[in-house]
Amino acid sequence: MANIAKKVSWSGRGDDRGESTPLLNGTEDGKYNRQDIVRSRPKEIPHNEKLLSLKFESLDYDNSENQLFLEEERRMSHMSFRCLEINRWVICGLIGFFTGLIACMIDIAVERLAGYKYFAVKQNIEKFTEFGGLSISLILWAVLNSAFVMVGAIAVAFIEPIAAGSGIPQIKCYLNGVKIPRVVRLKTLVVKVFGVICSVAGGLAVGKEGPMIHSGAVVAAGVSQGRSTSLKKDFKMFEYFRRDTEKRDFVSAGAAAGVSAAFGAPVGGVLFSLEEGASFWNQMLTWRIFFASMVSSFTLNFFLSIYHEKPGDLSSPGLINFGRFDTDSLQYNLYEIPLFIIMGALGGILGALFNLLNNWLTIFRIRYIHRPCLQVMEAMLVAAVTATVSFAMIYFSNDCKPLGQDHTEEYPLQLFCADGEYNSMATAFFNTPERSVRSLFHNPPGTYNPVTLGVFALAYFLLAVWTYGLTVSAGVFIPSLLIGAAWGRLFGILMSVIARSSSISANPGKYALIGAAAQLGGIVRMTLSLTVILVEATGNVTYGFPIMLVLMTAKIVGDYFVEGLYDIHIKLQSVPFLHWEAPATSHWLTAREVMSSPVTCFNRVEKVGTIVDVLSNTSTNHNGFPVVTHTTVHDEPGKICGLILRSQLIVLLKHKVFVERASSRLIQRKLQLKDFRDAYPRFPPIQSIHVSQDERECMMDLTEFMNPTPYTVPQETSLPRVFKLFRALGLRHLVVVDNENRVVGLVTRKDLARYHMGKDGLEELHLAQM
Amino acid sequence: MANIAKKVSWSGRGDDRGESTPLLNGTEDGKYNRQDIVRSRPKEIPHNEKLLSLKFESLDYDNSENQLFLEEERRMSHMSFRCLEINRWVICGLIGFFTGLIACMIDIAVERLAGYKYFAVKQNIEKFTEFGGLSISLILWAVLNSAFVMVGAIAVAFIEPIAAGSGIPQIKCYLNGVKIPRVVRLKTLVVKVFGVICSVAGGLAVGKEGPMIHSGAVVAAGVSQGRSTSLKKDFKMFEYFRRDTEKRDFVSAGAAAGVSAAFGAPVGGVLFSLEEGASFWNQMLTWRIFFASMVSSFTLNFFLSIYHEKPGDLSSPGLINFGRFDTDSLQYNLYEIPLFIIMGALGGILGALFNLLNNWLTIFRIRYIHRPCLQVMEAMLVAAVTATVSFAMIYFSNDCKPLGQDHTEEYPLQLFCADGEYNSMATAFFNTPERSVRSLFHNPPGTYNPVTLGVFALAYFLLAVWTYGLTVSAGVFIPSLLIGAAWGRLFGILMSVIARSSSISANPGKYALIGAAAQLGGIVRMTLSLTVILVEATGNVTYGFPIMLVLMTAKIVGDYFVEGLYDIHIKLQSVPFLHWEAPATSHWLTAREVMSSPVTCFNRVEKVGTIVDVLSNTSTNHNGFPVVTHTTVHDEPGKICGLILRSQLIVLLKHKVFVERASSRLIQRKLQLKDFRDAYPRFPPIQSIHVSQDERECMMDLTEFMNPTPYTVPQETSLPRVFKLFRALGLRHLVVVDNENRVVGLVTRKDLARYHMGKDGLEELHLAQM
Repeated sequence: MANIAKKVSWSGRGDDRGESTPLLNGTEDGKYNRQDIVRSRPKEIPHNEKLLSLKFESLDYDNSENQLFLEEERRMSHMSFRCLEINRWVICGLIGFFTGLIACMIDIAVERLAGYKYFAVKQNIEKFTEFGGLSISLILWAVLNSAFVMVGAIAVAFIEPIAAGSGIPQIKCYLNGVKIPRVVRLKTLVVKVFGVICSVAGGLAVGKEGPMIHSGAVVAAGVSQGRSTSLKKDFKMFEYFRRDTEKRDFVSAGAAAGVSAAFGAPVGGVLFSLEEGASFWNQMLTWRIFFASMVSSFTLNFFLSIYHEKPGDLSSPGLINFGRFDTDSLQYNLYEIPLFIIMGALGGILGALFNLLNNWLTIFRIRYIHRPCLQVMEAMLVAAVTATVSFAMIYFSNDCKPLGQDHTEEYPLQLFCADGEYNSMATAFFNTPERSVRSLFHNPPGTYNPVTLGVFALAYFLLAVWTYGLTVSAGVFIPSLLIGAAWGRLFGILMSVIARSSSISANPGKYALIGAAAQLGGIVRMTLSLTVILVEATGNVTYGFPIMLVLMTAKIVGDYFVEGLYDIHIKLQSVPFLHWEAPATSHWLTAREVMSSPVTCFNRVEKVGTIVDVLSNTSTNHNGFPVVTHTTVHDEPGKICGLILRSQLIVLLKHKVFVERASSRLIQRKLQLKDFRDAYPRFPPIQSIHVSQDERECMMDLTEFMNPTPYTVPQETSLPRVFKLFRALGLRHLVVVDNENRVVGLVTRKDLARYHMGKDGLEELHLAQM
Repeated sequence: MANIAKKVSWSGRGDDRGESTPLLNGTEDGKYNRQDIVRSRPKEIPHNEKLLSLKFESLDYDNSENQLFLEEERRMSHMSFRCLEINRWVICGLIGFFTGLIACMIDIAVERLAGYKYFAVKQNIEKFTEFGGLSISLILWAVLNSAFVMVGAIAVAFIEPIAAGSGIPQIKCYLNGVKIPRVVRLKTLVVKVFGVICSVAGGLAVGKEGPMIHSGAVVAAGVSQGRSTSLKKDFKMFEYFRRDTEKRDFVSAGAAAGVSAAFGAPVGGVLFSLEEGASFWNQMLTWRIFFASMVSSFTLNFFLSIYHEKPGDLSSPGLINFGRFDTDSLQYNLYEIPLFIIMGALGGILGALFNLLNNWLTIFRIRYIHRPCLQVMEAMLVAAVTATVSFAMIYFSNDCKPLGQDHTEEYPLQLFCADGEYNSMATAFFNTPERSVRSLFHNPPGTYNPVTLGVFALAYFLLAVWTYGLTVSAGVFIPSLLIGAAWGRLFGILMSVIARSSSISANPGKYALIGAAAQLGGIVRMTLSLTVILVEATGNVTYGFPIMLVLMTAKIVGDYFVEGLYDIHIKLQSVPFLHWEAPATSHWLTAREVMSSPVTCFNRVEKVGTIVDVLSNTSTNHNGFPVVTHTTVHDEPGKICGLILRSQLIVLLKHKVFVERASSRLIQRKLQLKDFRDAYPRFPPIQSIHVSQDERECMMDLTEFMNPTPYTVPQETSLPRVFKLFRALGLRHLVVVDNENRVVGLVTRKDLARYHMGKDGLEELHLAQM
């Protein structure tokens, strides 16, 4: 899913910056690369192991409470607030509805396309099994796969690279407060949905669940704004919600709705959003997010029930359904708990291995495979290899099982098996991964030969490592579950042989489930939310306790070696991601040391020319400017009286809210909040605004538009304290003042994200303009 | 559970203030009372409808980062932080373990006592059924009940009144940041556990689940501090955690562990803690809370399995077990969803009625039943009436059912039924409420006569209203579930008659479950956490969606009439409880208007006499004092340079950290953080510290001990902005400064809690010294 191959796409379009830019974030492995860097940018990056990109902007989760805003709020009656509240609920309902609909569409499309494909290949194999021209079947299969994948990869690589991968790292960053360009646009959604259908139908080792989270987020960002910039359509609705704070809340709801539709896990969805994003837990917000999740799962369920011609039978709340676990036969016993813990540890180790391999591969990709056409070719190669490996494994295994009356296989392959039997390896490969997972969970004991399982797990592990990071849109959840289910079932079989326990051998499906949880936990390292997602997908609370144990063990063991997959990809992108707390040993740092200074400040009434010059200065590219009272002494910093954002200044300049120097009492064009909202979120660049020489001499009165009460901290504040304030309130700029309230510095996201806990204590990342 | 009758106990011990004090918070209903108030305190309370008590202190969730603290933190290595982290996990494990153990103990004790009681009464009834002396049985039953309840009520009323009720409102307040005296002491725990055993065994309409939450919280507060002040034992462990911030985190874990043990709902427990308390969501904290919940549920399960002589069979994760719902027979259909919504609305209305009646009753109790002996007598009366009502209903119902082979009743009463039959009304009353709930959920269709159900629901509703608020420790969850299950089952039966639908009539248990959820949701108005708790208690995710819908409807409908039960009780106590957000229409208020001023400030180096005088001034009783730089002009406020707490000053005075005026370079006794931690949390009152006349002339240098970087806001900050900062960071004092950084006011909890949303917009509560 090519999150990192999409390095270019995270921080800016590939074509914006040209393909020849060496991608600096692939610089974690040593000397060769250092030379590489030094050669291309010898000055900028004195240390190149740890970098933090300056390309990423923060979102602004602190309302700018300027006079316009306060006046509007004060004009609003109790009733209008209630209306807003109702609007919020309506929007959440719509988010849930559309997300569910999209999930439904993806499901049906994948089901159909994969159905045609397997049917064609099966026919072909059956035809050639007798005559012995099976290589033709292999070619057919590989070509079909590659074709599907090619179409998907082309869409992603050439139209919208940000749509690659599962999108979970990007949404994590968005919820954390980092602005990832184009991540919540309509075009991204279209490419994502199309891409995921192609890549799943193309038989890659991917799932369609992860991308639902991204899709839900895009739906939310679109619906809540009541307009689409891509479609150039403004419905004049929900204008109040056109700011980062409100939008974030809805995007949380969208992500939750996505999880809910993917796994049929509304509670899990809410927890996912909270665990990954929200820093401030608000009961009403949570409840609304829950509503969106609920509607999403219900919509999917409802439409799928109609599609399956059983309207009213609400039995598929999510895209993946683990099938029904029978409570009685699957009770666990006390003596099994140590086994579960061992499996958790195993999952942690295997997950860490997965992440490590994928990390290396991603760095390789960033360095060598950054042209779109190369990316498409790699994706096609992987598709062909996947088909070949599958075919070879089916071909060489002679693991025949009798075809029972109640078999659940949709495409049982007879191949060289006797009549009335089928090849059991084929059930694992010749199927969408979702179905294979279900087979591993539920097929009766003895369905799979241990060797089959072992080989399958190994092959799929390698394929999945290779696949994650491709320029296709797809998720890693299902492959992880599949790998884990395979080795988990193998583990169960081995245990039953060792312990000669009939109760274990009777339920290999239970071990498959535990293995799946362990493997997934070891890769993604999510905690509470993943437990709930898995429990909800299982539909049975009995497994809650073992799943928790397993996920906990997997996380602890995995964290010992390497971070979670999403965090690795975020780090490789050099995103200034803020964790929950400042590093523990950072109390010796104070605001004075971490802040950026000197700060570019404006006066309360400032010359237009100065403002334009400051905004046009590309070398600094600041986004927030403290407004200070005018000081007579030139060098002395002024007292803080407000904070104004670049975006606000742009709107002011665009509307030419100037006063002439001579008569400052001249009537200003009265700006309204609406003008700011209309420009949100794509404020024009300063270069697009023409200011004449005469106008440059005018003045601008910022009093009405600046935030008069920005949060400030004294210089002596310790880093953890600054961090807490910044993170808890979702700030973008925090002004550092001395004891006279004069501005001495500004703390932004990068100043805090720079410090992190390394192996030997606190480390500082270096900043890079990329 | 007498939360409000315990008004005295919430804000201070009954005996501290004497029984004759008119209890001012029962002043919500009009004229008679107003006279009452005016007579006793004519001057203090000009408006008496809406009051906010000044008796409640805030907890301090903002670390005082003074020099001592920073020095300690800076001395600590990476390793010691890791040790701390491990300690936190160990503590959470212990919290879970002990909470589980307590739950187990309560369960076994109740089971045993109730068993003896029902056995004795059943013997007696059977003996007298033939001879016709059943009134003797009634008396036996009533006396047994009253005796149990009397013992419990005496313990609560005379030993520790705060142990009354479920304790959930108190824990909610604690997690919100309000210091409720004696709520997390060992004595409270002992009385609570003893009390709950007595009241459940005494047959009251109460459950043993709510008190588990309080018990868990007390266990957490005790274990995490590594000492018990009641037992005068200091284990010299976990000293680092002796401050409000850390303690709160552990208390959250304890509350979660309590929920988990009560309902077998570890995820629900975590959500409860977060929904009710934590303002800042931290992933590691959540994960630890989850661990505590998990251990708690597991411990209970493990020990109960041993008690039930089926070690290793982990089938009772919680005190209440809804029993196993069979997935197949209980799938819901699309057309049932409107029915569920109707039931939700019904639950909301009935819940509101419950809350309203209980509100009136509580006000009555506060006014007339505040002597402990009266309280005990009322509890005994309720116990006797409960027995009588039960008996009467069993006696007059002639609803006989054949006693099947697989009957689940433990005490089937034959009474006047034919041989081989039993009285079905008796199954509802002649049982612990937990068992009755389970019977209503699972007994096959036709077990209960509709009239039986209706009468039972009504009678139990009234009994439960009367019982909640008694001076016994007990919870409202189970009675609510029982009432709801009864009318839900009735609803299901009626629907099946109306619709002539065999699928409805086949599953009255499903409607019982939905009814139970609706009734409970209508009373307590919890949202996400309650959904998860119920789903986990049911053990089946299938019901997730309908339960959500029902709880949502119940909440919306219920909120239209009156608040949730816990919120009502918190309000009746005049607790300065901070909700999630400032009232929507409060943007026109600024810090200048809400702050308290003038503020008592200290100089950086202050005369001991001044400090002692300020601290001894009982009319102000401030807890936090801004420290300012000395100003020459007398009236002008000084520039802020720190904030110091009363508790810190007391420790300083106690250790006589004085410098003489003449030679201020004299060696001060070096204080350490340990000295502050040892005094935490029961700092001695100022009166206990003797300061001689000579010492009064000495000076105290506060520089090292004050928090040098308190959070400040400018005067123009709007109330919602102040509120957000205050709430998100869990502050106790927020200093308001002018643009020269001079202290102009102080915002504390009461200043923010004062404003709330009334029917006609923003209302302001009045403050009262009570």
